[in-house]
Amino acid sequence: MTQIFNFSAGPAVLPQVVLAQARDEMMDWRGSGMSVMEMSHRGKEFLSIAAEAEADLRSLMAIPDNYKVLFLQGGAHSQFSMIPLNLLRGKTAADYLNTGIWSEKAIDEAARFCEVNVVASSADRNFTYAPAQSEWRLNPDAAYVHYTSNETIGGVEIFWTPETGDVPLVCDMSSHILSRPIDVSRYALIYAGAQKNIGPAGLTIVIVRDDLIGHAQAGTPTMMDYQIHADNDSMYNTPPTFAIYMAGLVFKHVLKLGGLAAMEQNNIVKAKLLYDYLDASAFYSSPVAVDNRSRMNIPFMLKDATLDGEFLKQAQQHGLLQLKGHKLVGGMRASIYNAMPIEGVQALIRFMQQFEQQYA
Amino acid sequence: MTQIFNFSAGPAVLPQVVLAQARDEMMDWRGSGMSVMEMSHRGKEFLSIAAEAEADLRSLMAIPDNYKVLFLQGGAHSQFSMIPLNLLRGKTAADYLNTGIWSEKAIDEAARFCEVNVVASSADRNFTYAPAQSEWRLNPDAAYVHYTSNETIGGVEIFWTPETGDVPLVCDMSSHILSRPIDVSRYALIYAGAQKNIGPAGLTIVIVRDDLIGHAQAGTPTMMDYQIHADNDSMYNTPPTFAIYMAGLVFKHVLKLGGLAAMEQNNIVKAKLLYDYLDASAFYSSPVAVDNRSRMNIPFMLKDATLDGEFLKQAQQHGLLQLKGHKLVGGMRASIYNAMPIEGVQALIRFMQQFEQQYA
Repeated sequence: MTQIFNFSAGPAVLPQVVLAQARDEMMDWRGSGMSVMEMSHRGKEFLSIAAEAEADLRSLMAIPDNYKVLFLQGGAHSQFSMIPLNLLRGKTAADYLNTGIWSEKAIDEAARFCEVNVVASSADRNFTYAPAQSEWRLNPDAAYVHYTSNETIGGVEIFWTPETGDVPLVCDMSSHILSRPIDVSRYALIYAGAQKNIGPAGLTIVIVRDDLIGHAQAGTPTMMDYQIHADNDSMYNTPPTFAIYMAGLVFKHVLKLGGLAAMEQNNIVKAKLLYDYLDASAFYSSPVAVDNRSRMNIPFMLKDATLDGEFLKQAQQHGLLQLKGHKLVGGMRASIYNAMPIEGVQALIRFMQQFEQQYA
Repeated sequence: MTQIFNFSAGPAVLPQVVLAQARDEMMDWRGSGMSVMEMSHRGKEFLSIAAEAEADLRSLMAIPDNYKVLFLQGGAHSQFSMIPLNLLRGKTAADYLNTGIWSEKAIDEAARFCEVNVVASSADRNFTYAPAQSEWRLNPDAAYVHYTSNETIGGVEIFWTPETGDVPLVCDMSSHILSRPIDVSRYALIYAGAQKNIGPAGLTIVIVRDDLIGHAQAGTPTMMDYQIHADNDSMYNTPPTFAIYMAGLVFKHVLKLGGLAAMEQNNIVKAKLLYDYLDASAFYSSPVAVDNRSRMNIPFMLKDATLDGEFLKQAQQHGLLQLKGHKLVGGMRASIYNAMPIEGVQALIRFMQQFEQQYA
């Protein structure tokens, strides 16, 4: 059987050893007689799983003690509302950087709750780069500054941390969290859907500085108030227990591999392989500015777009799955998260070379 | 090894054959080369899983075509906000029945968005019964009438469907859904967290009549608007894919066992075994009025509460897990959902007899 490599943008490939462990523990978690799915979230078994997952994430990301880690539901889309509802704190405006589809979704939702000042936008070049900090027009009275550090669809990543002075910095790290070290202390709030580098869909991680908790505006639905979740250690309601367990297994796995510095080295090598190949080819191309090329999501174009269908068909036959680009960008997209082995990138390049030879 | 029986109120026991299937398909779903957790929610594989889950649930519950089935996140707690935000439709008041802790949670959240008229309450007898319809003081101008058909903590179940005329009837069926047939057409909206009779925590089922969709009040967070989810077949954002897959396996399993009528027969037999034993004993007792005794959650008391700790300790040694009653009720609680085999109830009763002989 052909080895399968799954380039889905998310939900995405997970470490095979983690899936195997989940399989082996499915019917009986460590002699408890229960599947993790069958455990009360208030029982000692699950409480130990959740505590260990949080401790391992804190260790991986070196999260300072004055930050709460919340295990929530509802994905980045729910954070798009929760951020203005919780962080406006009586102010009426917030700053947003616009680098693509996910920035725009965050902006559109925030605009329902406050005045949104777009500090800079890369719409002028079809979201193929990120505006430099020098181009940002920050509002000193903004309640916070929001940006999307990796645009999953456009494949645009920002590798530097914006400087916003006393204005809290908020970041959607959904599609590159755990792919490289981050200085959490530079941020007021970091959020990420789990379904790229962390675990199964249905879990959302929020890392929030504790002075920003407890300011939800009147009328905020209780489930959208960070304080409720912080005060109850993410157990105000039944959390997505199995997803937290899976995330915990992934955290442990990443720690064992050497943590985020090791992840970063792997991810640099994998991404460089593919970008170098794209740049050397006259048949394929990358649309993204060199400094902003995502290490996680790599869109690429065939010179002749009429071959796209044939490319995807043959890729599938070679066990290279889910390479179709998002409809808003077109072409192809290879998402190569932490769990994509370098062999997957090598197999993709071999196939691309072969396809190029066939059709160039 | 002692056989384990898990009486958790939720997350709760799942059918062993379903867990075994999930285990066997964990690394490779039906030759796709992917775990279900690794599939794009927009890919044909997962779309087929979600469509089949919905079709099977529709079949099981005989859901009419003019009802939408939504696979959401956030549990009953999120519905406590979403219901007033979506169903008030310009009205200012809603009717709520109060039969216990879960009713009160729904009432407290609704009161943040509208005037709540409590149509009847069983607080006078410590929530050990449900007020008869003749005692309900319905408001004809209410936007809707809400009740909790099974109080998971109090063990109070309402087996009849309230008559509310033209006022939409809304029901939290979290802890008895799929345990017996329901006439869905009598309801405007039914909701349930998955973690009792359906599957893992992190999935919430909403069944809503289509004329009630599209009326969210201004300022409702987008993720709390039923219309967004209905218009996008629950794929507006990334849904909890693995939980939907597990729910689908459970639906298929229940269909195979004969559907909800068969579930009901099993549940009547199982519950009767335990209640008959409690009623015949001078050592144990049920606090709940006979007509409202839940078939799913059975609280019971030891005559001498100082023995509670010893009872729990010995039960655990006999493989009878998670029997401790909720702190608000005290005593014990045996949750015997669909997936609890009759052997589990028999084992519990055998142990209870033995404990009674030891200490009576």
